[in-house]
Amino acid sequence: MIRVGIVGYGNIGRGVEKAVLAAEDMELCAVFSRRDPEGIKLALSTAPVLHVDEAPRMTDEIDVMILCGGSATDLAEQGPYFASLFNTVCSYDTHAKIPEYLAAVDAATNDTTAVISTGWDPGLFSMMRALFEAVLPNGGTYTFWGKGVSQGHSDAIRRIEGVEHAIQYTVPLGDAINMVRSGVMPQLTTRQKHLRECFVVAEAGADKAAIEETIKTMPNYFAEYNTVVHFIEMDELLAKHSAMPHGGMVLRSGVTGDTLQGMEFSLTLDSNPEFTGSVMTAYARAAFRMANENLFGAKTVFDVPLAYISPTERAELIKELL
Amino acid sequence: MIRVGIVGYGNIGRGVEKAVLAAEDMELCAVFSRRDPEGIKLALSTAPVLHVDEAPRMTDEIDVMILCGGSATDLAEQGPYFASLFNTVCSYDTHAKIPEYLAAVDAATNDTTAVISTGWDPGLFSMMRALFEAVLPNGGTYTFWGKGVSQGHSDAIRRIEGVEHAIQYTVPLGDAINMVRSGVMPQLTTRQKHLRECFVVAEAGADKAAIEETIKTMPNYFAEYNTVVHFIEMDELLAKHSAMPHGGMVLRSGVTGDTLQGMEFSLTLDSNPEFTGSVMTAYARAAFRMANENLFGAKTVFDVPLAYISPTERAELIKELL
Repeated sequence: MIRVGIVGYGNIGRGVEKAVLAAEDMELCAVFSRRDPEGIKLALSTAPVLHVDEAPRMTDEIDVMILCGGSATDLAEQGPYFASLFNTVCSYDTHAKIPEYLAAVDAATNDTTAVISTGWDPGLFSMMRALFEAVLPNGGTYTFWGKGVSQGHSDAIRRIEGVEHAIQYTVPLGDAINMVRSGVMPQLTTRQKHLRECFVVAEAGADKAAIEETIKTMPNYFAEYNTVVHFIEMDELLAKHSAMPHGGMVLRSGVTGDTLQGMEFSLTLDSNPEFTGSVMTAYARAAFRMANENLFGAKTVFDVPLAYISPTERAELIKELL
Repeated sequence: MIRVGIVGYGNIGRGVEKAVLAAEDMELCAVFSRRDPEGIKLALSTAPVLHVDEAPRMTDEIDVMILCGGSATDLAEQGPYFASLFNTVCSYDTHAKIPEYLAAVDAATNDTTAVISTGWDPGLFSMMRALFEAVLPNGGTYTFWGKGVSQGHSDAIRRIEGVEHAIQYTVPLGDAINMVRSGVMPQLTTRQKHLRECFVVAEAGADKAAIEETIKTMPNYFAEYNTVVHFIEMDELLAKHSAMPHGGMVLRSGVTGDTLQGMEFSLTLDSNPEFTGSVMTAYARAAFRMANENLFGAKTVFDVPLAYISPTERAELIKELL
């Protein structure tokens, strides 16, 4: 059994908990939090909840630590710190800073293996982009996200004066997807690829027109997109928009000689954090196995053979799935 | 530059030729055939065509040999033989015999690396099946093929008395795909998943009704399917059914806890042999690189990290695609 620890018990941490319990070759040893452990009750497991400060004493009891903190604040510090003590997996997703983060984690590893930036984007989508380009070097790759909730965009709306709550959906545009599938390899603008749909609860007496204008003109978040804003009541928002669906697709159309070839990968997820947790858990298996073979250091999804993430023995994989 | 040799110059060999010429880090050194080299003219390259018996003398001139023979007759012998002399890649696709073939190739390698059973099924589809099951252990995986030409089924029809020529398309059934996508994880029979559509040119005076009956009741090939037979003239068959399109999809629907999650990979190929050749060429890069790192022996797509098949440097992959 692979002995797993979870650091951070938010949505992703709960997703990892489910995935670890579903894995026949893993056991959940402990959940670590910076909050007071007394206040945290696990959804499913009877594993102990401990303060993160207790983690360093448990290097002999935990084979791999799954880091479930956020990229913006937690992981920049936790990633290298935990990699110096344990084999780790994380879902660091600040694309622009990944090389810097990779270097910091790699420098921190200490006869340990850290698989960084797992999940689905970065993660599975990255794998598909690399695979598709390797197989079809002449072509174009397109990534679409959604329909799904973007936490970053939802948060941006919530910071606007007069907004009580908000949920933002990223919606991929069918016309753009069809154009890609047709093989014309279009140059698509940001606006052509995705629509942003916002469900907003305004405070009593707030100026809705002003809120809508602030959303639609917000640089980096909304100004480059066609954005639709719906004002609704809090009970409707909670009833209809509390789930965390997401998904998306990576498409490549390319040519071999003059012949058109198309490759596509897509995810349709009823729970984004649970799926992300499942991917991280599969890569936790890889971190453990690579460390056992002295393949130490920081790794990415590009470095990990698929046999390492599967609970199935290699010989069985070859017999049943090849 | 990676110096590539091609063994066998049929449809797949011509596909590999195109892919090697399109790869910026490869050069085609020679094409080997069991036929008289004088009678073979390459489609694109000016590389020499040599008899296979000359290959053993060229171990210092070729970094990786791409084996383009058929599984049924050529590869069982050629796979181990060439793996003893060169790094190799093949598309061995007799699913039931892969473990035996792997063992034979592995035993033959001699400070060489042989990546077996690349292409798309086995190959990319196998990778997706393994990836999907690792990420969503609770669920069902479904593989659909087509719409595309099956050489094996076309050949089976051509062997029937009174048949002059025939092309068989494997057609995936939309109802079955939709049922899988809905998340009900159906048990699907062979008949529910695919239709077989046959275009047959009968010899003058042949008994068409008897031919149709023979096709539809042929065990293993057609009896388990709904089969449609169209009799057409030779000029129509050559005009409309000479291309080699194919494709298919791997789907998994599974649950994390009670939550439904769907993963999908699909290929839409205007040329099956050219795409297969492109995949093999990407894995030739991996065979060469793994051998350079003393990772010798027989490998499968489950054993090869994606970074090894990409022409892009790892640091660049991480920066641009992760």
